[in-house]
Amino acid sequence: MLTRKGAATRQRIVEAMAGEIRERGIDAVTLEDVGRRSGTGKSQLFHYFPEGREELLLAVARWEADRVIEDQQPHLGQLTSWAAWQRWRDVVVDRYREQGVHCPLGVLITEVGRRTPAAQAVTRQLLAQWQHQVQVGIEQMRDSGRISPRVDPRRTAGAVIAAIQGGVTILLSTGSAEHLEAALDLCLDHLRDYR
Amino acid sequence: MLTRKGAATRQRIVEAMAGEIRERGIDAVTLEDVGRRSGTGKSQLFHYFPEGREELLLAVARWEADRVIEDQQPHLGQLTSWAAWQRWRDVVVDRYREQGVHCPLGVLITEVGRRTPAAQAVTRQLLAQWQHQVQVGIEQMRDSGRISPRVDPRRTAGAVIAAIQGGVTILLSTGSAEHLEAALDLCLDHLRDYR
Repeated sequence: MLTRKGAATRQRIVEAMAGEIRERGIDAVTLEDVGRRSGTGKSQLFHYFPEGREELLLAVARWEADRVIEDQQPHLGQLTSWAAWQRWRDVVVDRYREQGVHCPLGVLITEVGRRTPAAQAVTRQLLAQWQHQVQVGIEQMRDSGRISPRVDPRRTAGAVIAAIQGGVTILLSTGSAEHLEAALDLCLDHLRDYR
Repeated sequence: MLTRKGAATRQRIVEAMAGEIRERGIDAVTLEDVGRRSGTGKSQLFHYFPEGREELLLAVARWEADRVIEDQQPHLGQLTSWAAWQRWRDVVVDRYREQGVHCPLGVLITEVGRRTPAAQAVTRQLLAQWQHQVQVGIEQMRDSGRISPRVDPRRTAGAVIAAIQGGVTILLSTGSAEHLEAALDLCLDHLRDYR
């Protein structure tokens, strides 16, 4: 267990690395830069991340994954009306449109190694958490009679997450949010109209 | 322009490399292997691919992209009834489930460099072609009165492609086709029921 001060230092290191990567790209970042930006020395860096760069990259990936969810709040956690769903949809589209073709989380996952169990755990956990919150939103709308009881909340939330994932993947290669918008709108139309 | 024989030799080289990559992974493949498998010498390899490995990788990526479309035929090109849409949906799901977590095209795009214009052109062209064929299917169903005139064929086809892309991306990280199936089914339900 880290002390409160230790946890704060560790967090400062993670955020310094995240900031460096976002601003200058992963290839340009050295542990020296991270130390300078976070005001920590090399021995402190290795105290908190004894396995070095790899372990730090994973911690930053987890932090970026948390950002993905947090950037959608409070909307994602309060999908209790169609107006709320529409606001959430707009926040998602704006977030990814703004991010453009550079995905900090994607870069980290690629760097750690897309096929490594640790990287896959980060991706899987993010998707599960995201899907769960959408599922809760669908359940609430179903309970208040605005979504058909014929809709399977868990499965449909999975479809919504896939739609977003696909729209973002295409955006990363084309720079356009067109597919993301079309996919999300189709999901919302479906939830609204399915009887 | 290549002679017919030249084109056949070039094609044999591309398919030999594609086969080697599918069977043994991209890191293990050398130009010697490709020469051996295709029955061509190094000078012939460089005659058809003067820029070497990079140019060959791109040609293989284009070939794999063509496979993605071809594996869906004849269904994708004949989306003129709901039974045909359902068959196409099953073929897509089966193809990707069988492929599992190893995507030959994805590996090639990553190797060429996801951010290079040449790799992006391959991805973009595949998506455009795929989306176009889905769009034609939607138009045919609309013209025969089975899909609502309120559905925008181009935009909705984009949503379908995003749904597939997202489902496949998730399958590549989880090994499960669950999201792909849910996303495709949601799109088909929407096309069927939207009025």
